[in-house]
Amino acid sequence: MTPTAPSAEARTEAAERLAGLAVPSGALGRLGELAIWLAGVQGMCPPWPVTNVRAVVFAGDHGVTEYGVSAYPKEITPAMVRAFLNGGAGVAVLAEQHDVALRILDIGVDDNLEGVDPAVKEFKIGRSCGPIHLEDAISRNDCARALIAGRAVARQEIAAGSDLLISGDMGIGNTTPAAALIAAYYGFSAAEVTGRGTGIDEHMFVDKQGIITQALNRVSRRMDDPTATLAALGSADIAASAGFMIEAAAQSVPVLLDGVIAVASAVAANAIAPGSAAWFAAGHRSPEPAQSLALDKLGMEPLLDLGMRLGEGSGAIAAVPLIRSAALLLDQVLQLSDLGIS
Amino acid sequence: MTPTAPSAEARTEAAERLAGLAVPSGALGRLGELAIWLAGVQGMCPPWPVTNVRAVVFAGDHGVTEYGVSAYPKEITPAMVRAFLNGGAGVAVLAEQHDVALRILDIGVDDNLEGVDPAVKEFKIGRSCGPIHLEDAISRNDCARALIAGRAVARQEIAAGSDLLISGDMGIGNTTPAAALIAAYYGFSAAEVTGRGTGIDEHMFVDKQGIITQALNRVSRRMDDPTATLAALGSADIAASAGFMIEAAAQSVPVLLDGVIAVASAVAANAIAPGSAAWFAAGHRSPEPAQSLALDKLGMEPLLDLGMRLGEGSGAIAAVPLIRSAALLLDQVLQLSDLGIS
Repeated sequence: MTPTAPSAEARTEAAERLAGLAVPSGALGRLGELAIWLAGVQGMCPPWPVTNVRAVVFAGDHGVTEYGVSAYPKEITPAMVRAFLNGGAGVAVLAEQHDVALRILDIGVDDNLEGVDPAVKEFKIGRSCGPIHLEDAISRNDCARALIAGRAVARQEIAAGSDLLISGDMGIGNTTPAAALIAAYYGFSAAEVTGRGTGIDEHMFVDKQGIITQALNRVSRRMDDPTATLAALGSADIAASAGFMIEAAAQSVPVLLDGVIAVASAVAANAIAPGSAAWFAAGHRSPEPAQSLALDKLGMEPLLDLGMRLGEGSGAIAAVPLIRSAALLLDQVLQLSDLGIS
Repeated sequence: MTPTAPSAEARTEAAERLAGLAVPSGALGRLGELAIWLAGVQGMCPPWPVTNVRAVVFAGDHGVTEYGVSAYPKEITPAMVRAFLNGGAGVAVLAEQHDVALRILDIGVDDNLEGVDPAVKEFKIGRSCGPIHLEDAISRNDCARALIAGRAVARQEIAAGSDLLISGDMGIGNTTPAAALIAAYYGFSAAEVTGRGTGIDEHMFVDKQGIITQALNRVSRRMDDPTATLAALGSADIAASAGFMIEAAAQSVPVLLDGVIAVASAVAANAIAPGSAAWFAAGHRSPEPAQSLALDKLGMEPLLDLGMRLGEGSGAIAAVPLIRSAALLLDQVLQLSDLGIS
């Protein structure tokens, strides 16, 4: 399942083209680096400005929500899924602005979502999952099903012509499994990875950290198997997102990462299919500490740092114009030799 | 010349609307704050997504360039003006991407720009200016002319329907007067404000800092008159940009600031017409230390921090989609009450 590496030749060609632009050396900053990455993942220089960007929101509930880790009740999850479908969710507004195709999938929402388009539930694994401090979130079998589902979804989006994929999330309580996964894969402590999610108070924060500690202790002996870790500490929606990213990397399609949930999925994807992360770039820095810790490990720095903590893929979609800028600049800025100056 | 303040009523209404959105409290981060600012400067809530954004690049040369403050020769300035007009400059690529009208004006380029459209030279004050460590950059009279020119340009752009203005710069050596102005207006030392511009080596950096020290010492007694400071340490192009911003604020049109040159102009504008800065927001953090120091004084934090140091207005134009996102989100995201959850 190891993906091929991005094109070293295209990266070299892009770096040379960048050095020859009629701008001071390094003047494009991160956009120059991004253009080189884009050339590598597209295997061509100059890279094209991604035009068919597709985001999939993987929705699901989490057993830990019953134990006081979120400022919001789990009923928000199905309500937000309906809001996505009716327009009016934050990510939908940004997706329309930036011409990003948006798809919402119920992978593990704790609701039957009566009346909702069956296509939304086509890949549903089950209703919610186990509380990770007490039991495995999902079975190994459900984890495998979720990974396969995510891969199938990616294949559909790639077949639709996508040249950049985004994985979004919707699920009350989901920063808890995301933080636990990042801690487990990289050996961080609960104290390092626990954040305030949608905005919990000090009391709930302490409880949340305790739940992550308990979860990490519970599964400590199984952490050398990345898929077992995902089943134990993750959820069906996070596993589907990981599968989505594994397939994207396997098919050489780049992924722009959103916040802590997407980054936890990316870490799982890269653990299960090493080398996948070369196909990923980071869109937006999350206020969740686990996201920054994981991005450091992956050697990525986000393009945006706007303090957004909406989830849904919104931070990544907000960064899409910068991806396009990077490609356009490397393609269209004059070369120094065009200026007619020695 | 004191501008009116942005609408407190519209700001309050925007803050209330933001608090009622179907997102966790504060989840839009900087985009939420930006939407409130936008409502205030537009005097309406929800704000509209700015559609008629217009950028003007004020080009000019600087006498200090003869004294080794830049990695590039002054011949680059007219060559780049021609590049702007023919397409292929970085800012032109970004302006086209984001549907920003772009205009280039020769205010003080040390070249006659033969064959160039006379409209580009309509507001020209002169060829280059004095080396600020030895003499005033421009006379009081030329400074007044440049301020008036900038105001006239802003009136033209506002008459063309602009709902957001951007001031860009082009001029080899221009980070030296910009840093000197920021130091003079706010009382910083040369050591604090001096940066590496387009990328100078240690030797040139020391020379540049010495020139800024000498310039600040030379004019220290006149720093209580903001227009005299601008004439002494600035340039015709920076004065025109300051006038442009003064007029924008006076006409209640917001300005998105670019890098250290635009921020120096904004500081001058706010010193000459106090209260102007309420109409400005910061687009991109410059690697130049003077820009961050000035933005701190103005209470502004840039939307982007991509390490770009291209000038031309490029950092501000790269941030335009975020301004639009802020307005769209506050306008279109569902209210909590629409979710049907108690």
